[in-house]
Amino acid sequence: MLETNGERLWDSLMAMAEIGATANGGSSRLALSKEDAAGRALFVEWAVAEGLTVVRDTIGNLFARRAGCEDRAPVVLGSHLDTQPKGGRFDGVLGVLAALEAVRTLNEKRIETRAPLEIANWTNEEGARFTPAMLGSSVFAGAMTLTEGLARVDADGTSVADSLAATAQAGDMRLGRDMDAYFELHIEQGPVLEDNANTIGVVTGGQAIRWLDIRVTGKAGHAGTTPMPVRRDGMFAAAELMRVVEQRAGETSGLLATIGEIHVDHGSRNTIAGDLRLTLDLRHPQDDVVDAAIDELRGLFNDICERRGLAYDMSVHWRSPALPFDADCVAQVRDAAAALDCDWQDMISGAGHDAFHLARHCPTAMIFIPCADGLSHHEAESIEPEHAKIGADVLLNAALARAGRA
Amino acid sequence: MLETNGERLWDSLMAMAEIGATANGGSSRLALSKEDAAGRALFVEWAVAEGLTVVRDTIGNLFARRAGCEDRAPVVLGSHLDTQPKGGRFDGVLGVLAALEAVRTLNEKRIETRAPLEIANWTNEEGARFTPAMLGSSVFAGAMTLTEGLARVDADGTSVADSLAATAQAGDMRLGRDMDAYFELHIEQGPVLEDNANTIGVVTGGQAIRWLDIRVTGKAGHAGTTPMPVRRDGMFAAAELMRVVEQRAGETSGLLATIGEIHVDHGSRNTIAGDLRLTLDLRHPQDDVVDAAIDELRGLFNDICERRGLAYDMSVHWRSPALPFDADCVAQVRDAAAALDCDWQDMISGAGHDAFHLARHCPTAMIFIPCADGLSHHEAESIEPEHAKIGADVLLNAALARAGRA
Repeated sequence: MLETNGERLWDSLMAMAEIGATANGGSSRLALSKEDAAGRALFVEWAVAEGLTVVRDTIGNLFARRAGCEDRAPVVLGSHLDTQPKGGRFDGVLGVLAALEAVRTLNEKRIETRAPLEIANWTNEEGARFTPAMLGSSVFAGAMTLTEGLARVDADGTSVADSLAATAQAGDMRLGRDMDAYFELHIEQGPVLEDNANTIGVVTGGQAIRWLDIRVTGKAGHAGTTPMPVRRDGMFAAAELMRVVEQRAGETSGLLATIGEIHVDHGSRNTIAGDLRLTLDLRHPQDDVVDAAIDELRGLFNDICERRGLAYDMSVHWRSPALPFDADCVAQVRDAAAALDCDWQDMISGAGHDAFHLARHCPTAMIFIPCADGLSHHEAESIEPEHAKIGADVLLNAALARAGRA
Repeated sequence: MLETNGERLWDSLMAMAEIGATANGGSSRLALSKEDAAGRALFVEWAVAEGLTVVRDTIGNLFARRAGCEDRAPVVLGSHLDTQPKGGRFDGVLGVLAALEAVRTLNEKRIETRAPLEIANWTNEEGARFTPAMLGSSVFAGAMTLTEGLARVDADGTSVADSLAATAQAGDMRLGRDMDAYFELHIEQGPVLEDNANTIGVVTGGQAIRWLDIRVTGKAGHAGTTPMPVRRDGMFAAAELMRVVEQRAGETSGLLATIGEIHVDHGSRNTIAGDLRLTLDLRHPQDDVVDAAIDELRGLFNDICERRGLAYDMSVHWRSPALPFDADCVAQVRDAAAALDCDWQDMISGAGHDAFHLARHCPTAMIFIPCADGLSHHEAESIEPEHAKIGADVLLNAALARAGRA
């Protein structure tokens, strides 16, 4: 098996982290900001030095191409260079720079591939400046129209189109062109690999996600004058709904339930909560398991609210079906991990990634490495250099298997 | 027993409601606004027409005095004319105009009292423009210094001092002068009288109030990547705390528990809630019962948070001890209600009132009448004209018993 140069990869990661470096050791390169443009420029400089051909598409996705012996659809390796406002040094960046390290290794060892290789840097993956997240890959793969993508504005009202122009990141490469396969290396952003003491996660797909909006309609009232028995307290009702959600999640292995937001309309400390809004994020590798949980929760919520004399409404805000990755690409990742004799496991991706959009466009797989304490979207995001190197090794060998050695 | 003129009282209430009238049938006279000044001016006009002497103190409390045969401390009847931004027509206003109606009745019937009678309109009872609520009575009774009261500012940065000057409401009457007694008629702002089909509440005092701040410290994390068993979810912990609070309140008759506010720090729908803040409002007629409940809740919270691996903190934000009203004044109210042959009951005041500050200054009692559906601080606030009249009758006769008929 080929091995990458871990030191060179780490040096590149550290050099990129200097662009938009934050006081607490993170990076701040919001999509299409001048910091993001500087990060892209550094990447382009490195890519050109490796003899790669750099092109951009109309939504600013950046591709660095290494020709193959055969003129056909490329095997693409990538991720994103943009970060959260106070982001870490590895989320996304690792996938792009490990792809660069793979190419550097091939160049160094004068290995040619049959299919061309491309490194992709997708625009606005984080969604921190422009919503939605994964905007560039979404437009590339046709989940969002170019017009819609260009029209998205940030908090200051600046559009993607204007930001692309200001940073000279728009190109004319065709959206949705053929790709032979897509491989993305990423930090796990969760604790599973670390807890299992594994180095490589062979990602078999994305889980089913449902974002639900719950509205509880009780009756506001004076905290000092309303006897408990006549109250229709939205807060205590919400507490009981939340308990039921937690209990239901505990009954099904792998079912994730998160209530991340709760808002009391016109809330004050001496007013009984009348109307409340809660969010519910439910995830599981299988669609039918999530949907069955939702049905069951509706019944439980009905019982609770009927008993309490309150009304509730639960609507689906976003439904993302479970997304299995391509069996062949997953096998290529798994084979590479096994051949490299590292500690690996199959796993599902809990977070969203550009690879999810690509998976609807071409055969796709992902590779995870651990991040300390599962922490990401944070300046303290941390990985082991050795893990980064092994991740790059798996990426290189899986891509090479796919592209074919000339 | 003397009876007031219900129609005249109602006409005065409706005339006052025209000042700052809102589209939905309420009134908007924020403290020391031009609407409040206009409301005060109308009251002064009525008072002067009844031969009363109008004076103001240095925090703008307005007094209309009817001389007694004896030159001694007055029996004071009052409440407030200021309203919430979208307030009702009766909260506070009833107490001032029923006092006026009592005086009108005495004038009409040429009845003199031994002690002087005064009608009081306290400044900024609502707390909607300047905090805290009950500012005028608080400064009068010495719970807050004049300097501090004058320095309070509204949301636009305008001080009480400047607002008093702008509306010409500051006078030179001495704060904290002697009063023989204080009687306040008010709408109940709760459902008890209505539910019991009673017309008069003989208020025996105010309940013990504790405002507590609870902080739950869990661990934020990614909703999609963090397995349930390793989560330290602040929201689900908060839900369990809330359930325990509700259950504990259910075990003690008269214990009121309200969680009116909850805030997730940096909350988002796909982030496990790390740090949360909740408020807890606990009330009961007896201090020891509230304090015992707090101690018990601390123990329960400890168990919950320890089991879940989270931390919590609960601190007392405000402690208002139970406040029994003066036994003689309460008896005078009760006797008046009984003699008038109306349906009455003893009760506690759940809400705060100017009378609470006065009770620390002089013998005090309150009278409640029902308001529809317990609703107040709302444009739809509603009372029965007949109840207003009976309330004024009780006020008049209790005050007359106290002041002594000449």
